[in-house]
Parts: sequence; structure tokens; C-alpha cells
Amino acid sequence: MASPEESGDSVEPVIDLKSDQFFMGEALREAQKAYLQEEVPVGAVIVHEERIIARAFNQVETLKDATAHAEMIALTQAQSALGDWRLSDCQLYVSKEPCPMCAGAIIHCRIQRVIFGCRDEKGGAAGGFINLLQQDTLNHCAEITPDILGEESAQLLRTFFEEARTKRKDRDLARGQDLGDFSYGSN
Amino acid sequence: MASPEESGDSVEPVIDLKSDQFFMGEALREAQKAYLQEEVPVGAVIVHEERIIARAFNQVETLKDATAHAEMIALTQAQSALGDWRLSDCQLYVSKEPCPMCAGAIIHCRIQRVIFGCRDEKGGAAGGFINLLQQDTLNHCAEITPDILGEESAQLLRTFFEEARTKRKDRDLARGQDLGDFSYGSN
Repeated sequence: MASPEESGDSVEPVIDLKSDQFFMGEALREAQKAYLQEEVPVGAVIVHEERIIARAFNQVETLKDATAHAEMIALTQAQSALGDWRLSDCQLYVSKEPCPMCAGAIIHCRIQRVIFGCRDEKGGAAGGFINLLQQDTLNHCAEITPDILGEESAQLLRTFFEEARTKRKDRDLARGQDLGDFSYGSN
Repeated sequence: MASPEESGDSVEPVIDLKSDQFFMGEALREAQKAYLQEEVPVGAVIVHEERIIARAFNQVETLKDATAHAEMIALTQAQSALGDWRLSDCQLYVSKEPCPMCAGAIIHCRIQRVIFGCRDEKGGAAGGFINLLQQDTLNHCAEITPDILGEESAQLLRTFFEEARTKRKDRDLARGQDLGDFSYGSN
């Protein structure tokens, strides 16, 4: 049988298992897990010598811990995997630009490069409202690659927040109804 | 027997168990524990309704986790104690000005006030190299009280780093000796 090349059919795109797009796809899978748990959908993976050594997603509400961002959990996992807090040969992939807390943690752990999906102009600390990853006064600087699967990452966040707003409205309406039942006379 | 007041003797100073100095003293006790474990001596406590609900010290080397700063551990403890990630009615006492990671975490947890000992002009994020605790673009602002037992906090850090330098020199010298033993002829 003729191969696709010989027959002139279009060739299936080969997935490069070492590309930024591939690893960001894995970070997005993590973000999806957050979405399914009704958490702000952000996911992260950490790569060492072209292999994923940590995967995590945002778990602020599940763990009742405002510091439980995807990046923080992934950093702790990676440190545990390598038995060292120095992650100098590691790359961190995260679906949204890191906040100041996570950027600070990334610098403490000496991550070599940070690759992120969508930008956060208001709260981002990798060039959004500030760039903490490249400050001469701090102990370490990390390379930055923005906008990898940025639109997919942003779309997941938009969907989450739109649904959250709708749910909140419905809940407020339902509560108003309940209050009406119990607080007769108060119109 | 005459009371000190009646006899004219000096009266022992009363320790105000609700003062910034008292709680910072407790943060310094934590810093001392770090010092005894050969960790950079920084300690923190978190106070809610005038009671300490979290105590922690820097454990970066012990836990092999570069994010294990005193403030981060204390925040997680306090969130666990209150069963909520919102620490809006809490005050955080820390012996050294928080770094960007910790300042970011403090803002996420909505700490009401941050009281710190000594300043960190190079890496501090509560007015040192940047003020992340009072940024209009972020979701929350915290009050700041600097310089509480600042000299005591700074002295402990100075002692630690001086001793660390001496130890490193001794170790390097000992290693040189060893190398000398094994690398004769390399002169």
C-alpha cells in the first residue's frame, strides 16, 4: 500500500513530545482538572531533562489554602522528586502568567525557564503588572516564553468565570426566594 | 511588707501580652529555633483576636523546599486553624521584612496587618525593593508596621551569616588539605 507521502494524501501532523506546545498541553490538562473541581482553572507541569517530574492544578478552595496555586504545588512536587530545592535545570509550564507569590517562589527555586499560556495584565508578575522573574536585585533570573496555547488557556478561564457568575446569580435569586418564605412581611 | 510602690523601689515593667513587641518576641523565639537548626533565622506568628493561632520558622534546608519560609508555613497553619483561607482579621508578625513570594501569599490570604522586625532593602517586598502589600492593582492591601524589635532580628541574622561564612572557610580549608593529600605533585 502506498504511504501517505506517496499517495499524495495529507500527512498527519507529528506531535513533538519535547515541544513547548506539548508540555503546555499537559499543563492545560491539569487546568481542566481544576475546572472539573470548580477551581479557577490553572494548571502547571515541571520538566527536567525533557521529562515531566511534577503536575498540579489550582486547589485553593479544595484545600482551603490561598497559597495552593498550581505552580506552588508543582514546585514542591518537583523539589521532592529531585531531593533538592534547587531546580536550576527545570522548566515550568503554566497555563496563566504567574502571580507575584508564584513568581517569587519560582525565583527561590531557581527555575531555568518559565513558559506560560495567557497573560495577566492586572496581576501577572512575569511582565504583566510587574516582572519579578527578571529583577537584578533578586538572587536569580528566569527566562520567559509567553503566549504558548494562550488562547486555549484564556478561553478556559473565561468559560469558568462566566459560569461562576451565572451560578452566583441563580444562587442569589434562589436565596431571595428562600428569604421570602421565611421573612414574610418583609416583602 | 511594703509594696514596691510604697517602698519607692523601681517597679518591674509589666509585659503587655497584646502588644506588637510581645508578639514579635514570640516570632523571634521561632527565629531562634531556625538558628538552632542551622536555618536562616526568621520566625513568624499569626494572631487572631489577640491570640496566636500559628507559629513557624524558616525550614528551607530541613524540608528541602525553597518555599518553606516562616510566613508560608504560618499562613498554611492559620488557614487550617480557622478552616478558611481568608485571614482578614489576622495580623502576621515576622522577624524580617517578607520577600515577594511571602508578600504575595499574604495578599492572597487577605491578612489585615503585617508587622515586621528588620528591613530588607535588597529583597524585601513590604517597602524594601518593592511594596507588594499595598498595590492598588492587586485584590487586597495590608497595613504595615516595620521596625518592631528590628535590631534584635537583624543581630540574629548577622550572627548566623557570620558563623556560616566562618564554617564555610573552615570547610574549604579542610577540603584543600584533603585535596593536598591526594593530589600531590599538582602544585
